[in-house]
Amino acid sequence: MERNDADIGHGQEGSDQDVLEPLDEEEGAYALTRKTVAAILFAVDTDDREQLVELMEPLHAADIADLLEQINAFDRRRLVRLYDKEFDGEILSELDESIREEVIMLLSPDVLSDAVREMDSDDVVDFVEYLEEPQQEAILDALEDSDRVAVQQALTYPEESAGRLMQREVVAVPDMWTVGQAIDFMRQREDLPEQFYHVILVDPRMKPIAHATLGKLMASPRETLLADITEPGFRTIPASQDEGDVAYAFNQYHLISAPVVDENDRLVGVITIDDAMIVLDEEHEEDILRLAGVGEGSLNDRVTETLKQRMPWLAVNLGTAIIASLVISLFEGTISQFVALAVLMPIVASMGGNAGTQSLTVAVRAIATKDLTGSNVWRVIRREALVGLANGTAFAVVMGVIGLVWFGDGRLGLVIAAAMIINMVIAGLAGTMIPVVLEKLKVDPALASGTFVTTVTDVVGFFAFLGLAALVLL
Amino acid sequence: MERNDADIGHGQEGSDQDVLEPLDEEEGAYALTRKTVAAILFAVDTDDREQLVELMEPLHAADIADLLEQINAFDRRRLVRLYDKEFDGEILSELDESIREEVIMLLSPDVLSDAVREMDSDDVVDFVEYLEEPQQEAILDALEDSDRVAVQQALTYPEESAGRLMQREVVAVPDMWTVGQAIDFMRQREDLPEQFYHVILVDPRMKPIAHATLGKLMASPRETLLADITEPGFRTIPASQDEGDVAYAFNQYHLISAPVVDENDRLVGVITIDDAMIVLDEEHEEDILRLAGVGEGSLNDRVTETLKQRMPWLAVNLGTAIIASLVISLFEGTISQFVALAVLMPIVASMGGNAGTQSLTVAVRAIATKDLTGSNVWRVIRREALVGLANGTAFAVVMGVIGLVWFGDGRLGLVIAAAMIINMVIAGLAGTMIPVVLEKLKVDPALASGTFVTTVTDVVGFFAFLGLAALVLL
Repeated sequence: MERNDADIGHGQEGSDQDVLEPLDEEEGAYALTRKTVAAILFAVDTDDREQLVELMEPLHAADIADLLEQINAFDRRRLVRLYDKEFDGEILSELDESIREEVIMLLSPDVLSDAVREMDSDDVVDFVEYLEEPQQEAILDALEDSDRVAVQQALTYPEESAGRLMQREVVAVPDMWTVGQAIDFMRQREDLPEQFYHVILVDPRMKPIAHATLGKLMASPRETLLADITEPGFRTIPASQDEGDVAYAFNQYHLISAPVVDENDRLVGVITIDDAMIVLDEEHEEDILRLAGVGEGSLNDRVTETLKQRMPWLAVNLGTAIIASLVISLFEGTISQFVALAVLMPIVASMGGNAGTQSLTVAVRAIATKDLTGSNVWRVIRREALVGLANGTAFAVVMGVIGLVWFGDGRLGLVIAAAMIINMVIAGLAGTMIPVVLEKLKVDPALASGTFVTTVTDVVGFFAFLGLAALVLL
Repeated sequence: MERNDADIGHGQEGSDQDVLEPLDEEEGAYALTRKTVAAILFAVDTDDREQLVELMEPLHAADIADLLEQINAFDRRRLVRLYDKEFDGEILSELDESIREEVIMLLSPDVLSDAVREMDSDDVVDFVEYLEEPQQEAILDALEDSDRVAVQQALTYPEESAGRLMQREVVAVPDMWTVGQAIDFMRQREDLPEQFYHVILVDPRMKPIAHATLGKLMASPRETLLADITEPGFRTIPASQDEGDVAYAFNQYHLISAPVVDENDRLVGVITIDDAMIVLDEEHEEDILRLAGVGEGSLNDRVTETLKQRMPWLAVNLGTAIIASLVISLFEGTISQFVALAVLMPIVASMGGNAGTQSLTVAVRAIATKDLTGSNVWRVIRREALVGLANGTAFAVVMGVIGLVWFGDGRLGLVIAAAMIINMVIAGLAGTMIPVVLEKLKVDPALASGTFVTTVTDVVGFFAFLGLAALVLL
């Protein structure tokens, strides 16, 4: 999508531009305004193609994709059909998976193949990898031969690996060249990649040795050896490496681009920081949703999709809630004599559950960022137990007083205070140890820790409170 | 930290290199191995400076920072003192805030001022902005005059703004220049920035108009006008913009670098994607911790720090748990007649709480990524209520049967089934509407939604279950 560069981002010149006005008061920076969405939907309602194209023109492909995600399926169908030939590959790349297939079905075959041909080969890979077989083939058929081969080759690497993430176009030169040779080489080459930041130095076996930034090349005399201006901290990435580890390396070591090598250490592609940033964003999103017991939720999923994602977690939760109920049922006799216990028991469980969630979230994040390791795990566990003890003691005093005042029974105050301390210490221990153990067992701690930790705090909370009550009050 | 580029990242040549071995089986990719940490601590124990320096040499500054964060305060003090003159500015920049001040105090003034002088000015800003006044001044005094002025100027921008994030070194040329003129200009300039990817075209008033990548410059004949090879999607960033919005723009529009402008649209600096990536990472981290009711937790905080962060959230939770208890206490009479109610009531509350957390997490993320807007909020709310109704009905059937079988009372089964449906629908509604309303009120929905939503599901759950029971069973 080409546009008049000078105007974008300033948005002072005309009212059409206010979509991109960086400091839009109404809905925060950079979002589509509600006004624009309404105007676009009005153009769709009135079947006014010219007006639609004019309204969409200043929008970035990412914003158009957001727009398509936000409107309902009926409007989406009419919009895509009306927009038709203007629909380009960039919008397709930006679309959320949940509505991608739906939109592909709406496009005429000509528009679809034009759109796909415009895309970079690594975007095509990202785009087709999760499509159904027949759709994937239809799109591959639309590509030119060389692009199709490139995409098919990328698809031979495992899902979510560096091999799928990388672009295959690289700028590599022999490691004994000078700055002048490299510049001349680049100026002669016709097919330089769209985006590249480094010239990669390779040995005669095509093994990457180091790289130099274009900026350094610009700043150095022609006769300088490339080997003398390479960047420190150079590292290569195996094509089979998991994309999450790739994103971690970019973030940890502040990489801008890194060459990808095959099992023989030969250069096969390059990954740039913008790809790594997208992966980092996705991994975070996944962690947040998993911690909340939502598989891969998105607002655009159909109700049936959403049910499929959420129901298993609720079923697991039902199981653990029933376990907690079984603990309570052990003490039915005690409760029927002291109904105050039924009133107070959820407080002990709830405080433990919250404290446990706090500990586990810090632990899950520390594991993800590799800050919780064999070297400090015991110190962290001790520390969390200590925090639990301190918090437990503080809230035990508060609840002890409340128990005394509310029910006029000092023993009840003592029981709830003791149960509170026990449960908060257990919460700190379980909140740290459960994610660590799950990690050792190769289970994603973000996915499963929550259920285990709250089961522990519910069971311990009810058992400690009701058990102590049975001992002390009866 | 300079090192032999050729070896890093391959790690086949010698045993010293295995620290960086990308596919370390023991603790996952790229982490410090436990063996290395043990060897380093042994060198510290034996006061063997030579061995320590040798072991630390292959480590990236980010890894050394991680190491310092993972060991205990006693070892940290000995290690920093022994490492002494080798300690450089890059390690300081990488250190977590929680132990930064501690480490600064350990360094001798000479080592500290050498370290700070090595740092880029934007790293110094990031480093000093949260230090106490006297330490901040000590560090500013160590800088050369020009750097000090640059840092002090950056500190005049608001905290967490684009002005603090940007680097001040830019490469800008008049907008009517040719490729040849730009290349000659860069080759003559002595102080090109360490990292830059674009040449910025400015008008005579220093307003950025467009930018061209270094790659395109390399690929174009000398006489080409820069204006003809500029990148689409150019946008500038106001210096006062919040860094979270900056990161959003980089992620949404796949920016690599973007010029920063003052209130008169004049160029004052540039932000690059690696800075934006760090901010994106921090914002995500913050969201995850806030959703779990942990302020700004880190594993390295002292116990007292951690207590200060977590206690307020537990206190709020205690308040809401007491409200739920008050609801239960309304039905003490009913419970004393049917103790089964006390056994089953946590199940209704727990299922509602979990369903509500699922809805709210999806909503909070959608708000953060600007996917939940005025255009689709009602559709999303309706959808979540529908999901709640469907899930509620499914689990109502299960619990109805369990109630009947466990307690042999069909009416109890009916009561718990009805309460389950009511609470799950409310969970879907509250989980979506509460974050939306908080956002409208300019309260961070990640921070406060959880408490409100679980309060609603607890109160509604207990009230619906016990209230229906009172009506039906008595």
